[in-house]
Amino acid sequence: MSRFQNRAPDSLRDVSLVWDFQPGADASLLIRMGGTHVICGISVEEKVPPFLKDSGKGWITAEYGMLPCATNSRYRREIGGRSGRTYEIQRLIGRSLRMMVDLNAIGERTLRVDCDVLNADGGTRTASITGGALALRHVLQKLVVGGKLAEMPKILPVAAISVGIIDGEACLDLDYSEDSSAEVDANFVMSGDGRWIEIQSTAEGTPFSPESFMAMTALAEKGIQELFQLWK
Amino acid sequence: MSRFQNRAPDSLRDVSLVWDFQPGADASLLIRMGGTHVICGISVEEKVPPFLKDSGKGWITAEYGMLPCATNSRYRREIGGRSGRTYEIQRLIGRSLRMMVDLNAIGERTLRVDCDVLNADGGTRTASITGGALALRHVLQKLVVGGKLAEMPKILPVAAISVGIIDGEACLDLDYSEDSSAEVDANFVMSGDGRWIEIQSTAEGTPFSPESFMAMTALAEKGIQELFQLWK
Amino acid sequence: MSRFQNRAPDSLRDVSLVWDFQPGADASLLIRMGGTHVICGISVEEKVPPFLKDSGKGWITAEYGMLPCATNSRYRREIGGRSGRTYEIQRLIGRSLRMMVDLNAIGERTLRVDCDVLNADGGTRTASITGGALALRHVLQKLVVGGKLAEMPKILPVAAISVGIIDGEACLDLDYSEDSSAEVDANFVMSGDGRWIEIQSTAEGTPFSPESFMAMTALAEKGIQELFQLWK
Amino acid sequence: MSRFQNRAPDSLRDVSLVWDFQPGADASLLIRMGGTHVICGISVEEKVPPFLKDSGKGWITAEYGMLPCATNSRYRREIGGRSGRTYEIQRLIGRSLRMMVDLNAIGERTLRVDCDVLNADGGTRTASITGGALALRHVLQKLVVGGKLAEMPKILPVAAISVGIIDGEACLDLDYSEDSSAEVDANFVMSGDGRWIEIQSTAEGTPFSPESFMAMTALAEKGIQELFQLWK
Amino acid sequence: MSRFQNRAPDSLRDVSLVWDFQPGADASLLIRMGGTHVICGISVEEKVPPFLKDSGKGWITAEYGMLPCATNSRYRREIGGRSGRTYEIQRLIGRSLRMMVDLNAIGERTLRVDCDVLNADGGTRTASITGGALALRHVLQKLVVGGKLAEMPKILPVAAISVGIIDGEACLDLDYSEDSSAEVDANFVMSGDGRWIEIQSTAEGTPFSPESFMAMTALAEKGIQELFQLWK
Amino acid sequence: MSRFQNRAPDSLRDVSLVWDFQPGADASLLIRMGGTHVICGISVEEKVPPFLKDSGKGWITAEYGMLPCATNSRYRREIGGRSGRTYEIQRLIGRSLRMMVDLNAIGERTLRVDCDVLNADGGTRTASITGGALALRHVLQKLVVGGKLAEMPKILPVAAISVGIIDGEACLDLDYSEDSSAEVDANFVMSGDGRWIEIQSTAEGTPFSPESFMAMTALAEKGIQELFQLWK
Repeated sequence: MSRFQNRAPDSLRDVSLVWDFQPGADASLLIRMGGTHVICGISVEEKVPPFLKDSGKGWITAEYGMLPCATNSRYRREIGGRSGRTYEIQRLIGRSLRMMVDLNAIGERTLRVDCDVLNADGGTRTASITGGALALRHVLQKLVVGGKLAEMPKILPVAAISVGIIDGEACLDLDYSEDSSAEVDANFVMSGDGRWIEIQSTAEGTPFSPESFMAMTALAEKGIQELFQLWK
Repeated sequence: MSRFQNRAPDSLRDVSLVWDFQPGADASLLIRMGGTHVICGISVEEKVPPFLKDSGKGWITAEYGMLPCATNSRYRREIGGRSGRTYEIQRLIGRSLRMMVDLNAIGERTLRVDCDVLNADGGTRTASITGGALALRHVLQKLVVGGKLAEMPKILPVAAISVGIIDGEACLDLDYSEDSSAEVDANFVMSGDGRWIEIQSTAEGTPFSPESFMAMTALAEKGIQELFQLWK
Repeated sequence: MSRFQNRAPDSLRDVSLVWDFQPGADASLLIRMGGTHVICGISVEEKVPPFLKDSGKGWITAEYGMLPCATNSRYRREIGGRSGRTYEIQRLIGRSLRMMVDLNAIGERTLRVDCDVLNADGGTRTASITGGALALRHVLQKLVVGGKLAEMPKILPVAAISVGIIDGEACLDLDYSEDSSAEVDANFVMSGDGRWIEIQSTAEGTPFSPESFMAMTALAEKGIQELFQLWK
Repeated sequence: MSRFQNRAPDSLRDVSLVWDFQPGADASLLIRMGGTHVICGISVEEKVPPFLKDSGKGWITAEYGMLPCATNSRYRREIGGRSGRTYEIQRLIGRSLRMMVDLNAIGERTLRVDCDVLNADGGTRTASITGGALALRHVLQKLVVGGKLAEMPKILPVAAISVGIIDGEACLDLDYSEDSSAEVDANFVMSGDGRWIEIQSTAEGTPFSPESFMAMTALAEKGIQELFQLWK
Repeated sequence: MSRFQNRAPDSLRDVSLVWDFQPGADASLLIRMGGTHVICGISVEEKVPPFLKDSGKGWITAEYGMLPCATNSRYRREIGGRSGRTYEIQRLIGRSLRMMVDLNAIGERTLRVDCDVLNADGGTRTASITGGALALRHVLQKLVVGGKLAEMPKILPVAAISVGIIDGEACLDLDYSEDSSAEVDANFVMSGDGRWIEIQSTAEGTPFSPESFMAMTALAEKGIQELFQLWK
Repeated sequence: MSRFQNRAPDSLRDVSLVWDFQPGADASLLIRMGGTHVICGISVEEKVPPFLKDSGKGWITAEYGMLPCATNSRYRREIGGRSGRTYEIQRLIGRSLRMMVDLNAIGERTLRVDCDVLNADGGTRTASITGGALALRHVLQKLVVGGKLAEMPKILPVAAISVGIIDGEACLDLDYSEDSSAEVDANFVMSGDGRWIEIQSTAEGTPFSPESFMAMTALAEKGIQELFQLWK
C-alpha cells in the first residue's frame, strides 16, 4: 500500500492553524490537517441550559456543520433537520471537550463551539475536536483577560485522531480515499496526561482481531502526542 | 460496591427469549436481559435501497424505538423527528448486523430489523443487537423453508454487551442505576469467532487509563461468550 | 358468510389480559382480543396542561401508536408527524376515557394513557379504549394506596367494540379481513350504566338504512355488556 | 332554553348560496348557514393517486382550512402541519362526498374539493359537506358541457347537519355558542334516498341515553330533508 | 401591444371594496382590483412581540396566504412551511404598513393583518398593501370608538401598485398574463404625501435602462394617486 | 456624520479576493469587503430542475447561509427550515446571476452557487452577488478548458452594492452599524453595460423623497463601476 505523497503509515498530515479567522466570534481558529479544513468558532453565552440553572456550573457544547462545497459531490444543506451522522459527530465533539475543564470553574455560562467543515478530506470529526480544544483554551484566556473569570481554570489538553486498517496494515490519520477503502475505521480522543477520553472502532467489512486493535491504539497514541505540540 | 441481588462484577443478568412475539412480523423475538425488554421484529421487503438497485446484493438495516412507558419518567414519542441518540443507536445496530452475512447471499431484498424497547433498564442497544441477530438468523431460515432462498447462507453470530467502570471497578452488563453512576461507559460487539465488530468506550467524568480499558475488554469478551450460548 | 373458526355473527373474539406488562409504567396492561394486541401503559404526571392550571382539576389524555411489525406490510414509524388516522384515534380514546371519572376528583395531575399496538387484526381503537379504561382504574387504585389520593373516586366503567355490515349481515367485533370487506364500519363506546359515550358509523361503499343501523346498535350493546365482565 | 332570534329547536339557520365565487376555480360556491360561511372550490386534476393508476376509476378528495380571522380569537395558520381536528374533518368530508357518484363514472381524474371557512359560527364541517356536494354536481355538469365526460353520471345527493343536546333538549343546527355548551354533539350525513352515510355522536360531559340519540336522529333527518331543497 | 378590454397602458383596473366581509374579524375588507380579490382581515391582540415588551410601543405585522383555488392550476396549501415567495411578500406588506402610524401612538398591542388571496390575477401583493392599509385605518377608528385608544393617531395613507415593461412599453397594474410576459416587473409603495416607502424593480429577461425605470416610476405615481381616492 | 476610518460617503470599503478557497468546489472564491467575508462556492451538476428537462437549457441557482459565528450574537443554524430573510436573499442572488449568461449557452446543467457568510458586517447579499458572479465566470472558463463547453459563452458582468441614507446623507456600501441606523436601505444590482438588474429601496423609518432616491442611485452606479475593476 502506498500513501499520497509517500506518507509513512505512522505519520500525520501537515497541520496548520489560522487564529481569529472569524473576527466576530468570541474566539476562532481555522485548523487545516492536509486537505481537511475546519473553522472552529466559539460563542460565549451568559446563560446555561435549564438542567444547570442556578447550579453554579457552566456548560460546553458543540455543533457540527458542513459547507455545501466541502465535499466532492455537493453536500446538501441540512435545513430539514440534522442527519444521524451530524448528531453523532457533534455529540462526540461536545462530550470530548467537556473533559477539558471542571465545569464549576467556568462560571454559569455556555461555551458553544461551532465546527464548520470548509473542506473535507477525512478526519473532520477528529480535526474538529483538536481545533475546538485549542479554541476553547483561547476563549477561557480571553474571559480571564476580560475580567469575566477571576483566574484561568486548570485545563486538560484534548486531541483526537483517526486510525484505520488498510490492506491489513494500520495507518494513521486517514484521508478521504483511504477512509473509503479501510477495513476498520477508528477514532481516538486522548487527554494530555495520556489517558483515553473516547475510543470508537468500527469494522467496515470484516471483524478485526485484538492484535489489529492494539496496533491501531499504538498509532493513535503516537499521533495524538504529536498533536499536543500545537499546545506549546 | 454491591450490585442489585448481589450480582458479581463479571456476571450477566438473566436472559430469556420469547419467540414469535409479534405474529404479524416475518420473524420476531422478545429478548429480556434483567429489566431490559426489547421487541425485535423483522420485515422482509423485496426491494433494496436505490444505491443497491440491480447489484444482486441485499441490505440489512435497523430502526430503534422506545415505548413511552419504557422509562421511569415517560419517554416522549419522537414524532417530530428522531433524536440524536436514536440515530446513533440505530446506526450501530444496523452496522453490527450487516456483519452477520454476506449481503450477496441473501438476494436483492431488505431485511429490516425493528428494535422497540418495551422496558428500559440499561443496555438497550446491546440487547437490541443480541436479539436482532438471533431474529435475523431465524428469518433467513424461514426464507429457505419458504423457498425464497436456495440455501441457508453462512452466518457469523453476533452479540453485544455493555461494560462500565464503577467506583474504579470494571462491571459487566450495567443496569440503569449503574449506568448513571459509571465513570466509563462502554459497548462491545463481537462476532462468534472472537473478533471485534465495534468498540465504543466513553469517559463520563474523567479519562480512563489503558489498564481500565483492558479490564473492560476482558469482561466484555467473557460476557459475550456466554451470550453465544443463546445460539445453540 | 362464514367467519374465522366459525365464529357466530354476535360473538366476540377471545379476550385476555396481562397486567403489569411494562414494569416501568405507573400501571400497564396488555389486552389481547383475538389477533389484536395492545399495550396500555399509564404515566402519572404531577402537572396539568396550561388551560387547567390552578383549576384544581386533573386531566386524562391518550396517545396511540403502532409498532412497525404490527401489520402485515410494515407500518412506517410516524417520525415526521402523526397521520390523520392516528390523530383521529387518539382523540377518540382520550374523549372516551375522560368520561370515566370526575376530573375534579383526581387531583391536579395528568393521567396519560399510551396505547401501542403490538399486533393489529382489526378493532385496535376499541381494544385501546377497553384496555385503557381498565388500566386507568388500576392506576387510580394505586394512587389511593400510595396516599396520593385520599379516596377512590367514583368510576364509570367504559368499554368499546366495533361492529360492521358484511354481505348485508351485522357482525360483532370485526377482524382485519372482515373490516376490509365490510359495507359499514362502526365503533361504539358505552358506559357501565348502558348509555352511549360515542357512536361512529361510516358507510364504506353504499349508505346504510336505519334498520341496519339498529341491528348494529343492538350487537354493540350485547358485545360491550360482555366486555364489562372484565371489570368484575 | 332560548335560541338566538328565537329560533325553534328544530329549525335551521338561513341558508344562502353564491355561485362562482372564485372565478379561477373549476367550480366554486360560497355557502352561508347563519354566521357560518364556507368557500367550496373544486379543482379538476387529470390524474389520480398512485393506488388508482390505470384502474379507470376517478377519485374525490377534500381539504379543509380556516381563514385566520374566521374565529373570534384569531386562528393560527397551520403552516407547521395540520391539526388533528383538521385531519378528522377533511377525512369526513372526503368520505362523505365519495358516496355521491360511482368513481368508475367520472373518468381517471381527481376532483379536489377545498373547503375554506371564511367565518365560523358552528357547523363548519357539515356546511362544508352540504356546499361541497352541490359544487361537485356543478363541476360534473361542466365536465359534460366541456366534453370531458360523455354523459352526466348518476348523482346521489348528499347533505349534512349538526345536532346537539342542550339543557336536555335536542336542537338542530347549533351555532358556536350552543355548540360550546352542548352536552352531546352529533353530526349526521345523509343521502338523498334517506339512508345514512355517517353518524357521529359524542358525549361532551355525560353519556347519552338511547332516547336522546333517537331524538337527535329525528331532528337530523328533518333538517337534512330541508337542505335537499337546495338541490332543486 | 393591446391590453384586455383595450385598457390603456396607464390605466388601473376597476377597484371595489366590500367592508366587513368577515364579521368575526376586528376589521375586514374584501378588495377587488380586476380579477385579483384579496380578503384583508385584522386581529387586535393585546400583547406585543418579546422585543417590544414594556416599551409602550405597539406592533403591526402581516401574513399572506393564497386559497387553493385562487390560481388556475391549484395552489397547494403551505402546510409544510411557507414558501420563499410567501415570506418575501408578507415581509413587504408588514414593512409597508408599519409606515402608516407612529407605533408609540397605538398602545402596546399588535395589529395583525391577514391578507388571503381569494382570486389571483396579478398584483396580489400590492392589492394586499392597498387593502390592508384601509382596513388598518378602520380598525384604529374602531379602537377609538371602543375606548381603547384615547384619540385617533395621525395616519399616513399608504397604497401600492405594480408596473411592468411589456414589449418595451411601460404598463400600469399588470394582470397575470401581462405579468408572465413582462420584461421588467416592479412594485411601488407610496405614502399619501408623495414619498416612496418601497421600490422593487426586477429584470425578468434583460436588464433595464435608467429611462425605462423613469417611465415606470411615473406610471406608478399616477396609479397610486388614483388609489388614494379610496381614502376619501 | 463620520464613518469608520473617515471613509468618504461615496467610497467603497477595501475589497479583496482569495481564489480556490475551497479546493473541493468546482470553483470557489472568498470575497472580503471590509469586515464582510463571503465564501462563494460553485457546484456543477449535470442535470436540470424538472421544468427544464429536455429543453437544452441550463440553470443557475443560489443558496445563502450564515456561519453561526458570523454575527456578533451567534446566528442560530437554520436546521428547522430557512428564515424568510434567507429565502429573500437567495432568490435575489439567483435572479441576478441568471442575467449573466444565456441559459441556452451553458448546456443542460445546473450551476449552483453557495454563498456562505463567514463574517457579517453589512452588505452580505450584495457581496454574495459580486463574488458569485466572478466565481460563475471562472467555472464557465473551467468547463471550456475541461471540454464540457465548446466555447466560452458571452458573459454579462454583474455586480451589486448597498446604499443608504444616514442623517439625511446618502452613503455607499454600509457597514453593519451604519445599516442599523440608516433611514433608507437600498440594494442595487447592475450589469456591465450600465443597465439595472434589480433595484430594492426600503424606507426604514420614514418615507424617502424622489431626490433622496436619485442621490442613492448615483452613488450605487459609481460604486458598482468601481467593482467592475475586479473583472479586469
